[in-house]
Formats: sequence, C-alpha cells, structure tokens
Amino acid sequence: MPTLTMPTTKATWSHTEEAIAREAFRVAYAREVESMMAEAKRQAAAASSPDELWELNDFLSARRHYLDGKYDFHPESLIFIFAQLVKEGLLDMAELSGFSADKLSKIRVLTFM
Amino acid sequence: MPTLTMPTTKATWSHTEEAIAREAFRVAYAREVESMMAEAKRQAAAASSPDELWELNDFLSARRHYLDGKYDFHPESLIFIFAQLVKEGLLDMAELSGFSADKLSKIRVLTFM
Repeated sequence: MPTLTMPTTKATWSHTEEAIAREAFRVAYAREVESMMAEAKRQAAAASSPDELWELNDFLSARRHYLDGKYDFHPESLIFIFAQLVKEGLLDMAELSGFSADKLSKIRVLTFM
Repeated sequence: MPTLTMPTTKATWSHTEEAIAREAFRVAYAREVESMMAEAKRQAAAASSPDELWELNDFLSARRHYLDGKYDFHPESLIFIFAQLVKEGLLDMAELSGFSADKLSKIRVLTFM
C-alpha cells in the first residue's frame, strides 16, 4: 500500500479539463468499488472457517486504508493519480481525451514507470 | 468488548469435569463461530456501498479481538467463562451437568450478575 505523499506538478487545468478529470475520477472510483465489493462478497460467501473471515477482515482493512484519500481531488497531483489509475486498469487513456497533449503525454510516460 | 483480565477461582476440576468442560467449550465455540459466520455472510451479501463493507470490517475486527483468547482453557477462570457463555446464550446450564453442585451453583449465581 502506498503511504508516501503523491508527487505534484504545476500544470493548470482548464474548466473543461477539470470536468473531464472529475468524471474520470467518478468512473474509476465506481469501477474500483464495484471490483472490491464483488471480491468481498465472493470471499464472504466462500468462507468456511474463522481464519477465512480474518483474511476478509485483512482485505477490507487494506482496501479501506488504500481508498482513504486516493480519490481526493487535488489538481497538483492529478497527473500522477491518473497515471496510477491507468496502470491499475481502472481507466483507459481514451477516457482522458480532452486533456491537453502535454498532460496526456506526461500521464502516458508515467504509466511506464 | 471485555478487555479486563478474567477473574479466577481456586476450584479444582476432576478429570470427568474437565472432559465435560472441554466438550462444552467446543460446543460453545462452534455455536459462536457459526453465528458469527452467518452474520458476516449476511452483511456481505446485503452490502451495497463501501460504508457497509467498512461496517462489516469493524464487525470482523471486533469479533476477532473478542474471540482471541476467549476460549483459552484456564481451569482457574472456567467458572467465570462458563457463566459468561451461559449469559451469552451459547451454552445452557443443562450442558454443564456433571460439574459439582458447588461449581454449578457459582456459575448460576454469576449468570445473574
């Protein structure tokens, strides 16, 4: 789980870009939550011992910690957050179209790191 | 959740009583685990938001903490543990028959406290 502070950039975001960014956030969050809920329900339904419930307990604790703050909207961190979401498969670069070429290029480069 | 150390008595336990006590422990533990698992599965199946998963997470953390050590077999604490299990509905006094009248009487009195 990442515990370091997200790096920042000084990019400025137009109103249009901000609207695209907020919608992309909403979509990525919904996908991440849906995936987490499906996994938790699967683990709970399959559990046949307390130890398996404790594994679910650990899974939920980790996801909760990870999600806490991940989707806070800080313009100075967005480039890095979007690169992370693309790397995690929660967003496709195509869903960020409308961002300036400079921002898209930075995001793309970061997804290879 | 109780965090205090369980009080103790100086009662001695015959081999027969110990066998009854261990079987009663096994039965109470199985009932408690079954009830917890059913509740966890119910909560997971019904969850429709991350907040409801966090409630399940809190439920599991609390149960895990509570169960940890609850069923450790310490003869000097058994009177108090059995009174607790009867109060929680996990054991019936009838399931402790075979204990000395003195022990049963102490357990019964404690269930009213």
